Amino acid sequence: MLDKHIIISSDKWLDEQGPKMHIVISSRSRLARNIEGYTYAPYAKKEELQAIADVIDSAINKIQEVNQFHRIAVPELNKVERHYLTESRLISKELEKSGEHRYVYLSEDRKISIMVNEEDHLRMQCLLAGLQLRTTFEIINLIDDYLSQYIDFAFSEKYGYLTACPTNTGTGLRVSVMLHLPGLAVQDRIKEIVEMVQPLGLVVRGFHGEHSGFEGDFYQISNEITLGKTEEEILETLHQVIERIIEREEEARVKLFEEHKITVEDIIWRSYALLSYARKINSTEALQLLSRIRLGIDQGLFPELTHQQLNRLIVEVQPAHMLLQEGANISASERDIIRAEMLRMRFQSLLSAN
Amino acid sequence: MLDKHIIISSDKWLDEQGPKMHIVISSRSRLARNIEGYTYAPYAKKEELQAIADVIDSAINKIQEVNQFHRIAVPELNKVERHYLTESRLISKELEKSGEHRYVYLSEDRKISIMVNEEDHLRMQCLLAGLQLRTTFEIINLIDDYLSQYIDFAFSEKYGYLTACPTNTGTGLRVSVMLHLPGLAVQDRIKEIVEMVQPLGLVVRGFHGEHSGFEGDFYQISNEITLGKTEEEILETLHQVIERIIEREEEARVKLFEEHKITVEDIIWRSYALLSYARKINSTEALQLLSRIRLGIDQGLFPELTHQQLNRLIVEVQPAHMLLQEGANISASERDIIRAEMLRMRFQSLLSAN
Repeated sequence: MLDKHIIISSDKWLDEQGPKMHIVISSRSRLARNIEGYTYAPYAKKEELQAIADVIDSAINKIQEVNQFHRIAVPELNKVERHYLTESRLISKELEKSGEHRYVYLSEDRKISIMVNEEDHLRMQCLLAGLQLRTTFEIINLIDDYLSQYIDFAFSEKYGYLTACPTNTGTGLRVSVMLHLPGLAVQDRIKEIVEMVQPLGLVVRGFHGEHSGFEGDFYQISNEITLGKTEEEILETLHQVIERIIEREEEARVKLFEEHKITVEDIIWRSYALLSYARKINSTEALQLLSRIRLGIDQGLFPELTHQQLNRLIVEVQPAHMLLQEGANISASERDIIRAEMLRMRFQSLLSAN
Repeated sequence: MLDKHIIISSDKWLDEQGPKMHIVISSRSRLARNIEGYTYAPYAKKEELQAIADVIDSAINKIQEVNQFHRIAVPELNKVERHYLTESRLISKELEKSGEHRYVYLSEDRKISIMVNEEDHLRMQCLLAGLQLRTTFEIINLIDDYLSQYIDFAFSEKYGYLTACPTNTGTGLRVSVMLHLPGLAVQDRIKEIVEMVQPLGLVVRGFHGEHSGFEGDFYQISNEITLGKTEEEILETLHQVIERIIEREEEARVKLFEEHKITVEDIIWRSYALLSYARKINSTEALQLLSRIRLGIDQGLFPELTHQQLNRLIVEVQPAHMLLQEGANISASERDIIRAEMLRMRFQSLLSAN
């Protein structure tokens, strides 16, 4: 079972401020590493998986002075608890669905998570609010440096770090930024963004990662290939692209509010109205409505609301978050009722009548 | 130009209470009469139309002691003013579009209107709130009796009152009731109502009469044929049918709130939310949203609101009402903005936070 402490603090990073928060939800760097001499996790037998986990646990224990980590054994979690961690972006969908000898280590501040025996033996990520790509890399790079004192990572002079899937071979670095692009989306200009990033080896995904739709106008942009590039190049490429997208989104929002002020304000206030009064809301609709409120914050329509509060709501309206907070075996339709209740309370308490 | 006094008081009947108002918006009786020896209005020349109008004016002046009437010459009204009277249901679409020598007489309390040179020389109606079919007939019948002292109505022993269109020949009586049937509509049972009334010579129309859709779940039921039946039979048939429909709608609402309480409350509160916060609303959407509030009043969700207030709003959100109240040449999109503003003010002042 998931520790109560984990549940309460798993989305801590959401409460922090970060640069460009009006457009950038979060930045993330993730390193893939494998231990020399061991089979890749997808092909390893049980005993080997446990041996790998033991090597890693021993190394992490040695760096507890630097960072306090909380270890969670995935098989000990029920379905909802696993999905909760995925929703909080602390583990991947793959780890969520995995079996024995899978672990995740979470730092006290929840900014760092280390997955054990996912596709690679180690997947280490740092997640921060706003546009802090370089900082996320520096933090996770430091963890990598510390662990490499105690673990012999599989490395080839020719290819760099070796990984289970060739797309991660090289630096093993995947960087991603979650963007909120309602301005470009409403002007049907997302295609333009996709075309801008593709030639640079970057890819656009939805709020829920791979194979998810673009619900709520959230877009995650990340590098697809790590081979043949330095960490610096990967970071710089993504950073430059994000800066350009931010500029375009800012222009799009200005244009939107200049040319269609009433229409946009109508959409935003209708969203606020539904969040404040609906009696049932599913998670997809909630995400859409909250997305519009987020745009409204940027335009000064909700001086009482912060981007952080909104980001937290966006995470907390997700199904497993709702279930764990309610702590009961509730059906999907009951969940929609409780979600609406929660949103109603938040919005009616956050805002005075306008 | 339409007298300011007319504009202010044209929807007076809306403020009165009537029986079964939770389902019945209004009852109406209308008598068609023609003057012996004159051509029917659609075929009459200008001079004859004026002669007809003079005969009627003289008669109405003689009964001013009974009822004070305000005479309006239709050709003197602009397009918006004419449509305003149609929206208030004081004149017909035909009179709205007509030309010279067309008049309407409105009683001081606006319950009675007498159209001159519509399809028939005289079309006299009485309109009351709620289910008051018999009373509307008694009132208009009395006016008919008074006028017949001064006007020789075209009458045949065989056919009864003669009219321009054979469907009105006989009693010349058309009775209609405007119903609000969200319970039956949501259960897809309107077909059942249509099938129930058709064999009885009754017909179902929408909120805006002939050839209009069933916007907002409003249904007008009226007799189609007057020939071969007495006034008493016509009234009794419609009254009995309406009583049966009311029973079914009441059952449908109970079932709806028993079996789908949250879903229905969700729909009603969402409607309230949009009326309270939207920045632009067209008249069709306004009618739909107000229809749901009306259902909410019946279910005790809005103790501060009365059916009368809602009925008035339903009339006042119509395009020509909006235009005359604003008194300017505003575009349709500006009208939608002003409509939303008006609804927002009404709803935010009528209701405290819930």
